[in-house]
Amino acid sequence: MLVIMRDHASRPEIDHVVELLQEAGAQAHLSGGEVKTIIGVIGDREVVYALELEGLPGVEEVIRVLKPYKLVGRDFQADDTVVRVGSASVGGGDIAVIAGPCSIESQEQMSVVARAARDAGATMLRGGAYKPRSSPYAFRGLAEEGLKMLRIAGDEVGLPVVTEVIDVRDAEIVAEYADILQVGARNMQNFRMLDDLGSMNKPVLLKRGLSATIEELLSAAEYILKGGNRDVILCERGIRTFETYTRNTLDLAAVAALKQLTHLPVIVDPSHATGRRDLVAPMCRAGLAAGADGLMVEVHPDPERAKCDGPQSLTPEAFEAVMKDIAPMVSLMGTRMGWSA
Amino acid sequence: MLVIMRDHASRPEIDHVVELLQEAGAQAHLSGGEVKTIIGVIGDREVVYALELEGLPGVEEVIRVLKPYKLVGRDFQADDTVVRVGSASVGGGDIAVIAGPCSIESQEQMSVVARAARDAGATMLRGGAYKPRSSPYAFRGLAEEGLKMLRIAGDEVGLPVVTEVIDVRDAEIVAEYADILQVGARNMQNFRMLDDLGSMNKPVLLKRGLSATIEELLSAAEYILKGGNRDVILCERGIRTFETYTRNTLDLAAVAALKQLTHLPVIVDPSHATGRRDLVAPMCRAGLAAGADGLMVEVHPDPERAKCDGPQSLTPEAFEAVMKDIAPMVSLMGTRMGWSA
Amino acid sequence: MLVIMRDHASRPEIDHVVELLQEAGAQAHLSGGEVKTIIGVIGDREVVYALELEGLPGVEEVIRVLKPYKLVGRDFQADDTVVRVGSASVGGGDIAVIAGPCSIESQEQMSVVARAARDAGATMLRGGAYKPRSSPYAFRGLAEEGLKMLRIAGDEVGLPVVTEVIDVRDAEIVAEYADILQVGARNMQNFRMLDDLGSMNKPVLLKRGLSATIEELLSAAEYILKGGNRDVILCERGIRTFETYTRNTLDLAAVAALKQLTHLPVIVDPSHATGRRDLVAPMCRAGLAAGADGLMVEVHPDPERAKCDGPQSLTPEAFEAVMKDIAPMVSLMGTRMGWSA
Amino acid sequence: MLVIMRDHASRPEIDHVVELLQEAGAQAHLSGGEVKTIIGVIGDREVVYALELEGLPGVEEVIRVLKPYKLVGRDFQADDTVVRVGSASVGGGDIAVIAGPCSIESQEQMSVVARAARDAGATMLRGGAYKPRSSPYAFRGLAEEGLKMLRIAGDEVGLPVVTEVIDVRDAEIVAEYADILQVGARNMQNFRMLDDLGSMNKPVLLKRGLSATIEELLSAAEYILKGGNRDVILCERGIRTFETYTRNTLDLAAVAALKQLTHLPVIVDPSHATGRRDLVAPMCRAGLAAGADGLMVEVHPDPERAKCDGPQSLTPEAFEAVMKDIAPMVSLMGTRMGWSA
Repeated sequence: MLVIMRDHASRPEIDHVVELLQEAGAQAHLSGGEVKTIIGVIGDREVVYALELEGLPGVEEVIRVLKPYKLVGRDFQADDTVVRVGSASVGGGDIAVIAGPCSIESQEQMSVVARAARDAGATMLRGGAYKPRSSPYAFRGLAEEGLKMLRIAGDEVGLPVVTEVIDVRDAEIVAEYADILQVGARNMQNFRMLDDLGSMNKPVLLKRGLSATIEELLSAAEYILKGGNRDVILCERGIRTFETYTRNTLDLAAVAALKQLTHLPVIVDPSHATGRRDLVAPMCRAGLAAGADGLMVEVHPDPERAKCDGPQSLTPEAFEAVMKDIAPMVSLMGTRMGWSA
Repeated sequence: MLVIMRDHASRPEIDHVVELLQEAGAQAHLSGGEVKTIIGVIGDREVVYALELEGLPGVEEVIRVLKPYKLVGRDFQADDTVVRVGSASVGGGDIAVIAGPCSIESQEQMSVVARAARDAGATMLRGGAYKPRSSPYAFRGLAEEGLKMLRIAGDEVGLPVVTEVIDVRDAEIVAEYADILQVGARNMQNFRMLDDLGSMNKPVLLKRGLSATIEELLSAAEYILKGGNRDVILCERGIRTFETYTRNTLDLAAVAALKQLTHLPVIVDPSHATGRRDLVAPMCRAGLAAGADGLMVEVHPDPERAKCDGPQSLTPEAFEAVMKDIAPMVSLMGTRMGWSA
Repeated sequence: MLVIMRDHASRPEIDHVVELLQEAGAQAHLSGGEVKTIIGVIGDREVVYALELEGLPGVEEVIRVLKPYKLVGRDFQADDTVVRVGSASVGGGDIAVIAGPCSIESQEQMSVVARAARDAGATMLRGGAYKPRSSPYAFRGLAEEGLKMLRIAGDEVGLPVVTEVIDVRDAEIVAEYADILQVGARNMQNFRMLDDLGSMNKPVLLKRGLSATIEELLSAAEYILKGGNRDVILCERGIRTFETYTRNTLDLAAVAALKQLTHLPVIVDPSHATGRRDLVAPMCRAGLAAGADGLMVEVHPDPERAKCDGPQSLTPEAFEAVMKDIAPMVSLMGTRMGWSA
Repeated sequence: MLVIMRDHASRPEIDHVVELLQEAGAQAHLSGGEVKTIIGVIGDREVVYALELEGLPGVEEVIRVLKPYKLVGRDFQADDTVVRVGSASVGGGDIAVIAGPCSIESQEQMSVVARAARDAGATMLRGGAYKPRSSPYAFRGLAEEGLKMLRIAGDEVGLPVVTEVIDVRDAEIVAEYADILQVGARNMQNFRMLDDLGSMNKPVLLKRGLSATIEELLSAAEYILKGGNRDVILCERGIRTFETYTRNTLDLAAVAALKQLTHLPVIVDPSHATGRRDLVAPMCRAGLAAGADGLMVEVHPDPERAKCDGPQSLTPEAFEAVMKDIAPMVSLMGTRMGWSA
């Protein structure tokens, strides 16, 4: 850690910082020119970082040069984590395609989508049983009934199923039915939920928050790994910016950056990111080209009558076209579809 | 609702939209020139809004002209809501000043702050027992032990106490100790928590999310009112933007806008918004000048050794100076400090 | 255009809007339910749009359903514009790769880069003679001397050259040396410069502003086309968001969207967008996969000693590797490198 | 300057950085623990900063601890700059209120506004003769004819006049008529224009760019001061964020921050920032409470028929009410209206 003092900070101001550091058991090394003094700090990372020196007299800036995460970093584990679940795997060159509707509406809907997804080559099935909605007047999902439908549909076609936990109290029941537990963008910093998922025995799909930095996403994943659960899949799904043409701004440079920073698999959700059906195909291609380990795509048998996210959902036919479109890209990137069988 | 068709949309495309609308029990009124057709939709708001027509062939844009909230709006209730709790009240010209540390660290710390807060003129006491932290390695609060300290400190000086619920499972226990339940920025769209708080009998202080629009904040409050709990206080605490000099960007125009749109009290948290002690005083003044019904200010007996948010915390002396500074502003705005006694 | 009146707008308020519309020669069509009145407006687009009705009593919102641009739109011209300059072309399946240093530093530097660029397969050469710099103390370019070096280097290898006009007064002199005139992000809304470039006989490479929407970028291009110059190439180079890991946030969904909205070629600048050398290759791939018509890449013979943008510049060797990396992507997308010869 | 090496950077990587620093005439001081090496750099600021070491092997981050500006800083000049022009002054406790229409439309319009502005207590008159417009089809101003009208109107009531220079080629002609030259948000980083204004003998009103940081605004002002022109007034006018309820997000914490960082006067433009007439009054109050040295307010005799920015313009009556509203705020802040006479 470095403490940058203000220009011409006084001797007592500097001494005071040094004293606080020593009090905390850290070593302080002073360096500086005529104008600036800089204090280099060496000591136990957690203790030193817990000091909040920013507001002290004479202090201009405190720079934490060590990253706030450890277990998720490439420094800790150089090799790619591969998350395996049933017949599917993701990471280390195995590409996941997770397809399904925004919300589970009926057994028939799910079974139709499941067959279409499997036939087109998806490796996992998704569907929401609990829906976070901005307005309390919108459709909020079928809850456990929906989970059952998802499970049945997944079993019918032999695909593992992914679904979102929007309330920590549902984690157990969701885990009874689902193979992968999704944490939505709004819950990325629901730290107690992350703690709980860290001690569960199910892979977690962690979506980036709407205004979360790359570092915050990695820190959120660190919560889960710290609890002992190493099977975390990260998902870039667009960040909120001033641009309104697309629902969010898909940050594909973050995907490439994450692949360098972490060993965890990283997938892309172009459906939520763009909010526009006609941008899903190009963003699937671009996501894979950026190095993503997978895609999450909304598919609905009848998007026009979908209860949620119709505008960005693909028909089964359109999804099949996307799968054909991306197949050569998967090869070109030296990867393969993540089917174990 | 209006459906704007693309330029030169075809007759079958237009007919298809009309058909879906009629299927849903709504009336469709067509108007348009040579280039554009626009379909005006009249029908039950919730039904019509649930239709997601954006992705249909020929549809360019769907405009929902009715607001997504109702109970929180001035149209529903013209008069200001006044939230009363113990000796304090906020709204309708009553100004709240909520002071206290970011995190509760010890009984002595809380009692010292409580006296300082009361003596300087604060109307409520705050302190965090459960702390959401970006890193799993940071201090996360004293939990129930902290709640007890807060309650004791509040009782010692006769101030109602405010504290955050970060996990819905804690709501009951927090409610045993606290007078007002705070929902933090990260939980603003934790909809199940909002549902639960809606059926509780305690006022809620709802903070705006880091990337939440004004409309989303109001929709989140709508969840609570819809559950039957009318005592909601909104809090502007800065939004996330590209500017890094301040921790967040305090959006005071949102305060003025909220005062027009809703009858609920609106307060400002300049400590979290700016992250800088030296900007707290001017932002307190500016917040009140913008029409805020109150302020939330971090005060710590020894900010240099605070376990959390030290850089933005005021000493008791600095807080007293802020209180003297804002007193004439409170009068100038035609308001008064919200003490019932 | 649609005028959405506030809930329960009064009869005189509605009449007043209608009157102003009629005064401007437009027709007003009223529709609405009990709560809302909506006024559909038909009339001359430019006249109607010039009316600014937003602040009138009873008016809630004014929605302009026609786009603010025309000549750049696919509605106006369905076929791709292909910009041809010397041996190179871009658009309509022809891919441009524009390589070169941020700033021109010497004849030798330029000649070395030019050979490396040509040998690796670039189709155009770039280099800055006038540099916009945030600080007045930074290196600001060699001006006309630099233009000469760029021209010589381009001629030596037979590549057309691209350089930025940062001051409208330089446009003529730059045009004497350059084949394509670049408008930088900071000048995207320098409307008088756009006007001037519109009447010149040189292709223009127009970069998206740091906080410009897709619609604003298209409107800026409209200025140039309106002046009579049809040879405009758009460039996505990252927008400014809260994320600081990358210099800007590369918005590849905007590339895909632009390809739908306009017939103009669209290229991507991953060097400026990310500010990180190690993200250039994946973003080149992803840009092409998103449908871009080309790439702009910073290459410097000795990035460590570059006077500008060293951290994001590639060595000639690294650039060669990128070119090899993207070759199969160019084929996969059904496109070809834009060499005329 | 500090160079933070990556964890476990190799000896040759570290040596290489040191060598480049020494080559540039700087001194390098190494410090570090087992994991991290940090290189402190001392040398000539401009030389050292021109080195772009970010992309070197083993380098994680380069931190420039000295500010990129000097002349505008409080370190360079502790006392407030007071800009005086004719009967008016701004800075050092003198408050400017600059009123007038977005665009100059006719002599009568300007003369009416001028009288209303003066009678209500404004200290300066504004009006646009050249208008930057997103669309080439919008009204773009009366040019020199408008400048004459503005001058006449100002002289009639004895108020100095402010108007925007949108093209550097107009600077001379604008300076013939105007007392203060405004640089609009879109031109904040038009560095050649800043250079030119730096050598002119007229005060400059410099508006913050839509996506400019506080530091970039100060660096832009540095350009002007470096040229020799010390009379610069900064203007906060809202930044672009995800919030769409207001046109931009008024950043009042930036005003308070600027007052600490620079000796230059800082004013606020609530009209452009909010784009909503009904938010102008509260943001005028809040701006002054935040410490602003003045306000810029759009006033039009007939906003409904304004050619530009009608929705945010005040009628003369509404402006008079704002002036009455802010008078006690001006006193409360210990300031006074900036009339010299």
